[in-house]
Amino acid sequence: MTPGPTPVPPEVLAALAEPVVHHRGRDFKETYERVLARLGEVYRTQNPVLMFTSSGTGAFESAVANLTSPGDRVLVLSAGNFGERWAALTNAYGADVVHVRLDWGETPEPSDLRSALADTGDVRVVYLVHSETSTGVVADVQALAAVAKEADALVVVDAVSSRGAVPLETDAWGIDVVVSGSQKALMCPPGLAFDSVSPGALEAAAHATSPRFVFDWERTRKAQAKLDAPFTPAVSLVKALDVALGMLLAEALEATFERHARLGRACREGAKAMGLELFSPDDERSAVVTAIRVPDGIEGGEVVAALRDRFGITIAGGQGELKGKIVRIGHIGWFDVFDITTALAALELALADAGADIERGIAVTRALEAFETHAAV
Amino acid sequence: MTPGPTPVPPEVLAALAEPVVHHRGRDFKETYERVLARLGEVYRTQNPVLMFTSSGTGAFESAVANLTSPGDRVLVLSAGNFGERWAALTNAYGADVVHVRLDWGETPEPSDLRSALADTGDVRVVYLVHSETSTGVVADVQALAAVAKEADALVVVDAVSSRGAVPLETDAWGIDVVVSGSQKALMCPPGLAFDSVSPGALEAAAHATSPRFVFDWERTRKAQAKLDAPFTPAVSLVKALDVALGMLLAEALEATFERHARLGRACREGAKAMGLELFSPDDERSAVVTAIRVPDGIEGGEVVAALRDRFGITIAGGQGELKGKIVRIGHIGWFDVFDITTALAALELALADAGADIERGIAVTRALEAFETHAAV
Repeated sequence: MTPGPTPVPPEVLAALAEPVVHHRGRDFKETYERVLARLGEVYRTQNPVLMFTSSGTGAFESAVANLTSPGDRVLVLSAGNFGERWAALTNAYGADVVHVRLDWGETPEPSDLRSALADTGDVRVVYLVHSETSTGVVADVQALAAVAKEADALVVVDAVSSRGAVPLETDAWGIDVVVSGSQKALMCPPGLAFDSVSPGALEAAAHATSPRFVFDWERTRKAQAKLDAPFTPAVSLVKALDVALGMLLAEALEATFERHARLGRACREGAKAMGLELFSPDDERSAVVTAIRVPDGIEGGEVVAALRDRFGITIAGGQGELKGKIVRIGHIGWFDVFDITTALAALELALADAGADIERGIAVTRALEAFETHAAV
Repeated sequence: MTPGPTPVPPEVLAALAEPVVHHRGRDFKETYERVLARLGEVYRTQNPVLMFTSSGTGAFESAVANLTSPGDRVLVLSAGNFGERWAALTNAYGADVVHVRLDWGETPEPSDLRSALADTGDVRVVYLVHSETSTGVVADVQALAAVAKEADALVVVDAVSSRGAVPLETDAWGIDVVVSGSQKALMCPPGLAFDSVSPGALEAAAHATSPRFVFDWERTRKAQAKLDAPFTPAVSLVKALDVALGMLLAEALEATFERHARLGRACREGAKAMGLELFSPDDERSAVVTAIRVPDGIEGGEVVAALRDRFGITIAGGQGELKGKIVRIGHIGWFDVFDITTALAALELALADAGADIERGIAVTRALEAFETHAAV
């Protein structure tokens, strides 16, 4: 129950175990064509969705390498670990990086971005994080993208943990590049990552001088347009992704988003019922991962270890400066409310045994009640 | 029966279908530690073998990005498609590339390299291909590496299709970087790729200014030394690799090499018995893929299509300038002699039906006889 890699449905695991086919053979091409079409549907875009055999960070790197010539001014808006990754990457590629660094756990506001853009001027690319997995904050990227567009900048969004879990309208919101990976709400093992690329992004890439080869957009776009891949793709993972995306689209994206919103609500209400303090915001966008403050005097890592060792349940601790201070329960992908209640019940028991002063016996019931409430907020 | 992706044993497929585990969890760490140790054994090296979630080309790119500052003089010795890839990559990274381009199908000789190095001088890195999958030629990289070392250059070898199939003594032959991938003789699906890196290569990387992030050696080396991965690895593929490497080491590397040599001999003798002309050399090193000239008046692509459509057998055609002129039968990885005889029998039938003047009814017998001959050459 970490925010990724997430559990993979048995149908998807079964697809992984099929015999390996050649990536230029006819049967693979059928799968490949369907996967690319399904990715476009899930991405809510008419633009190409470029597929890489890589961790999600490879798709981050691709979005930097293809848009950066050394010295180009870019802006990174960060409020956690994955925002920091944008900063590390753009610095590695020699960009002139304006790094607007909010406190970990803050929700980036359009006004933060607007004033930063006004102060600097001439920003070519704005790098944003949709769901900051390290803190549980889901930003309003629609509003943030609109501000970046006013300043005539390209907008790149890290949606590794949000794509498929919460709404993200790539084309309707005018987002040039959306970065995602297979191992979160897309219900696959890690190993595939994606960049959707707008015509404006491709045009900018044509002038970017950073060296790149396997992550080169134009090479990948050209190959995909012919239903080919420039390099041997991870065919087993592509087959698995085909099955997983089919399941996601069969549930219907809107229903999936609604399920995630209800799972998030259930998790928050259960944690609050125990008397715990949320670290991630108590709002309906927070449907990806719930971050919970560990009570004073208790070390977060020990709680994570207790759940793993005593119950075989894997939740996540804090990253970076939040290490030891929070625990994180992921609810992206193939989850049902009873997974959430299981995590809450185990957390309750582990905290009680560690001597925390928490309310017993109410979290599960409260979570189930919250899950039943369909009302939109 | 292409030279990759190759068939994957059922034990390995079964490992792929196991539930996805978290890459920082205890059970994954056990697998990861074992895989890294097994990789070192198969690589015949005490140096770190860095693992990337990528196609083989990503490990090529890593070997260029970490060793190149713009303007550095490097030498590429090519005689086929994958040698051309070294040239494309080093050019993409702004190296001053001395490209010694032999005809496709030629076997690179130490004298070719020695004279090229003498002519240029001051070459920092020599990029070689061990098994040129496009032509079936396996070069004598021990001799080539020795020549490069005389000139005080680092030696980088593409061993994507040879690692695990034919001998390659990384440390004993003084090879600084050996590039390989999971989807050939290592009997796994595509998606993992490797660079072994010598202390000299790491030292050079510390001064190379090309931007890189997911393919950065130092970041990867540091993480692996702590049994961590810098980015979420393809955990399912790593588990599969663990099983596959276990099988390879259980057979014993020397026995595996011997099997490949015998498979190559069987394939060549069978093809010759039909009256076909070999394109790849008729020597014992050619144990990876056998390239066969298609008889005059017959188009290679049609032979490949006939085998696929009529018999469900996938062999490969020619790449680049060899398109239509040759067919290639791979015998790397999980193959037995009866796979070879199946391919030969199907090829014989397809060629006969296409009107080729070939000897019937003898190839299979001859191949089986050749396979039985253990004598070293």
